[in-house]
Amino acid sequence: MKHIKIGLFGFGCVGQGLYETLNTSKNFAGEITRICVKNKSKQRALPPSLFTYDKAEILDDPNIDIVVELIDDVPAALDIVTAALKNGKSVVTANKKLIAEHLEYLVQLQEETGRAVLYEGAVCGSIPIIRTLEEYFGHEPLKEIRGIFNGSTNYILTKVFKERLDYAKALSQAQEHGFAETDPTLDVQGFDPKFKLSILLTHAFGIHVAPDHIVNLGINRLKAADLEFARDRGLQIKLLAHAERIDDQVYAYVLPQFVNGNNNLSAIQNEFNAVTLNGDFCDDQLFIGKGAGSLPTGAAVLSDISALSYDYQYEYKKHYNLGQLHFTNDRLIDVYVSFDSPNDLELDDFASISANYFCFDRCYVLGKISLEKLTSEAWQKNDRISLIQLSEEDFDTSKALSITSLAAEIKELKKGQKIREKISV
Amino acid sequence: MKHIKIGLFGFGCVGQGLYETLNTSKNFAGEITRICVKNKSKQRALPPSLFTYDKAEILDDPNIDIVVELIDDVPAALDIVTAALKNGKSVVTANKKLIAEHLEYLVQLQEETGRAVLYEGAVCGSIPIIRTLEEYFGHEPLKEIRGIFNGSTNYILTKVFKERLDYAKALSQAQEHGFAETDPTLDVQGFDPKFKLSILLTHAFGIHVAPDHIVNLGINRLKAADLEFARDRGLQIKLLAHAERIDDQVYAYVLPQFVNGNNNLSAIQNEFNAVTLNGDFCDDQLFIGKGAGSLPTGAAVLSDISALSYDYQYEYKKHYNLGQLHFTNDRLIDVYVSFDSPNDLELDDFASISANYFCFDRCYVLGKISLEKLTSEAWQKNDRISLIQLSEEDFDTSKALSITSLAAEIKELKKGQKIREKISV
Repeated sequence: MKHIKIGLFGFGCVGQGLYETLNTSKNFAGEITRICVKNKSKQRALPPSLFTYDKAEILDDPNIDIVVELIDDVPAALDIVTAALKNGKSVVTANKKLIAEHLEYLVQLQEETGRAVLYEGAVCGSIPIIRTLEEYFGHEPLKEIRGIFNGSTNYILTKVFKERLDYAKALSQAQEHGFAETDPTLDVQGFDPKFKLSILLTHAFGIHVAPDHIVNLGINRLKAADLEFARDRGLQIKLLAHAERIDDQVYAYVLPQFVNGNNNLSAIQNEFNAVTLNGDFCDDQLFIGKGAGSLPTGAAVLSDISALSYDYQYEYKKHYNLGQLHFTNDRLIDVYVSFDSPNDLELDDFASISANYFCFDRCYVLGKISLEKLTSEAWQKNDRISLIQLSEEDFDTSKALSITSLAAEIKELKKGQKIREKISV
Repeated sequence: MKHIKIGLFGFGCVGQGLYETLNTSKNFAGEITRICVKNKSKQRALPPSLFTYDKAEILDDPNIDIVVELIDDVPAALDIVTAALKNGKSVVTANKKLIAEHLEYLVQLQEETGRAVLYEGAVCGSIPIIRTLEEYFGHEPLKEIRGIFNGSTNYILTKVFKERLDYAKALSQAQEHGFAETDPTLDVQGFDPKFKLSILLTHAFGIHVAPDHIVNLGINRLKAADLEFARDRGLQIKLLAHAERIDDQVYAYVLPQFVNGNNNLSAIQNEFNAVTLNGDFCDDQLFIGKGAGSLPTGAAVLSDISALSYDYQYEYKKHYNLGQLHFTNDRLIDVYVSFDSPNDLELDDFASISANYFCFDRCYVLGKISLEKLTSEAWQKNDRISLIQLSEEDFDTSKALSITSLAAEIKELKKGQKIREKISV
């Protein structure tokens, strides 16, 4: 095996994890010869000679074989990756937003330059899902992918449901442990798992879908009443990514969902991620591992570097061979939507409503709505409403709405003198 | 991608599954051009021209690129694989016994001939564990592998514990569903999971360990009293394969074990398999999927064929780079052993005993014993004793032996007038 020379961009959490895994590993023939960073004033634990502030010192160095890109800034990352490929260097990145937004271009650029871009660390940290989809399920007619793709929100939800912490406290704990970013927007609003889902759509179903077309709602709008609704029924809320193929149509979204104890994703706790696959041949598969953190993600990046040492490239088998599948948002899903006032909500958007509960502190509706409707600004930007998906397996709608449970609920409401109005449609 | 021509040996359960997956898959460029079978009188669903009874018609055919070996007979399979490699053909097999017993030879033969042998289907059916260990965890300092590697025994144990079926009935159901062989010896005595464990030792720790050196006890000796012991304490019994590295020593064994509801392997039901990995970087990983069956295993074989189309070979990274690890049976484990009469048991073999219960219908001992002792004929061949591992996480030994529980147990025994003798050492 030849000794690989690596040029690294960025030396944050994952960069440092990579440095440590690479130098601890006993059987890796390679080294990081240069690290390009932005902040000149920051104290670094490594010798200053290793660092540069000029990207050309890596990109134009003919001795560097592989460029590893681990910075946050998407446009800058795209420039680096483009220049590296054009200069004959293969690239490893863990930048999910970069890949999700530019995958079609990057596939084309790989074809043109003959160089590879690998990005296992971009999706679910330590779970080897991309290469498994490419290599192992390349010929499997997959039907469904579902999972917990974001460690920080899963950490928050675990604390909220297992330890009954409130949301703000759970978020700050996640930040203290390094599972959530200082700006947690991408995580808690469900953008981060959506980027990952978008990437997996290419490897599982062969379709490139821009993240903008995929519905995502996060956990940032969950209210105390929503948590109580779940707890009263012995349910948890998990932020799930979901893609399914029906004939030649594929739909996909990221939404919070009620899950009961029988759902195998209910046991996935803290910063762990999980991916379930279902296919015609393999039936059900479940992969569980740490989705975030310096060493787990660093190890994923190292496994990509190692794969480049024998010229591995993704073949995008499904994309090139199964191009006939189509993405759609034309799909009804069952949801619970809570809100303060009926004025907050477009009731006409629902295809059907099975029940309304209107009371003083918080109202909610159970009904069916299409993903298409949820792409609208009214649903995406309205912080006064919160939406949680219901699935048949986890939430028995018929039971929840039985006469007895309705009666009991009304009694409960009356007891607190909170009832204003109640309509069953 | 070139059109691959495959010569197949054997057309049983997995062979037929391969045929179906290969012909259903929309993006596989290849075909089975010849199938060599043994039984001339058997009716086949495919045209007779596809079949041959002469292995040379595959092995000596220069048009055949890949040989797929799916027969039961290990010496015959070894001849086929050897001849194929020497004739310049790469090989895919799902024969775990063949690989476990001849891996060192087959690695050497691959080096000499430059051809590949792939065998993902040999270990845990549809779970892509070998390639994941090779490609993804090739640089990860793994500490532990643990799992349920045998679908038929897991099916039996699930029925025994979830549906309270007796052992014989559960076994015959497993056979009806095709999860257990007509001769279930290799499964129920723990040989099948041991072969798989032996293979994984090479890919996870870089050591070749002949299956003969690895302790295996199965579920065939479990008695009604053992099941009651588990049920009374809210435990299940699972047949687990286990390998662990401590410094430069590796130990490994297959034993039934008591597991409680917190153990993530307790939820693995029916014919599903599971593999947990623990490493310094990746932390905990869990893979779950179907471990047996025509289509899941057929799909695993197809993924190997597909990998050969781009000349993939296992690199045996850990073996070539980490050769310094050593296998040992010098390791104490906690066990429960039950028996009819004290004469059945070598009490001196225990390193320590924490309790004896002697009564008329069935006696048991809790204590520590070394794996080395369990390799002896007295433990391997004595059908009158049954052994189940205890782990600290799943079975609180101190609690089980508290004065209160002992007193309650004595009372219970007295009630039935069954007590003969009771010694607490």
